[in-house]
Amino acid sequence: MHDFKYKLVVAVRRDLEMGKGKIAVQVGHAAVTVVEETRKHHPYWWKHWLGEGQCKVVVKVSSERDLDEIQRQADQLGLASAIIRDKGLTQVEPGTATCVGIGPGPSELIDKITSALPLL
Amino acid sequence: MHDFKYKLVVAVRRDLEMGKGKIAVQVGHAAVTVVEETRKHHPYWWKHWLGEGQCKVVVKVSSERDLDEIQRQADQLGLASAIIRDKGLTQVEPGTATCVGIGPGPSELIDKITSALPLL
Repeated sequence: MHDFKYKLVVAVRRDLEMGKGKIAVQVGHAAVTVVEETRKHHPYWWKHWLGEGQCKVVVKVSSERDLDEIQRQADQLGLASAIIRDKGLTQVEPGTATCVGIGPGPSELIDKITSALPLL
Repeated sequence: MHDFKYKLVVAVRRDLEMGKGKIAVQVGHAAVTVVEETRKHHPYWWKHWLGEGQCKVVVKVSSERDLDEIQRQADQLGLASAIIRDKGLTQVEPGTATCVGIGPGPSELIDKITSALPLL
């Protein structure tokens, strides 16, 4: 597929069985949050990711533990990450961790964490 | 529901029948793009929207014309907006307009445009 040098990935819990609108909101939260972190702390990555067309990939995981593990690996590699917790007004319990965003950052770093995960 | 003073809305075309992962990516593009525009041009709105918890709402429309009309109204009200065009590698033709993001901005302005639209 494309040869993006920078990407942002959001991993969504499929075990929660959220609807498509709910998922879209959660992914939006994750993307905006990690982009802002990266703008502040890795402005070079941020600039190049935007310039390339802000590649985003949404993958699926099966549990909250998977979100924690992805964040742990992102921390180790110096990538921005954010686990999104939902207010729980609809579809899920309040405070439920729904997804994790990582990046944007160099694809070779991101891929170490998420390349084996299936697309949502 | 909540009394958010600021919000961001993304309106997604339902006539394209995109899958949930595809929709999430498009909404992510829209959100990141309008947030960055608003950060630059309406930093007060941007700051307060983030501080409130970055309220996002995803609604549905039925045609590309609806996206254009929403953007036209956003322009008139001085709100940031972005129509997202997909590269068309999967599910849609290249260059297809998939959604429009508006805001973040004062809810009373946003609501003038999108309050009548159904949630996705």
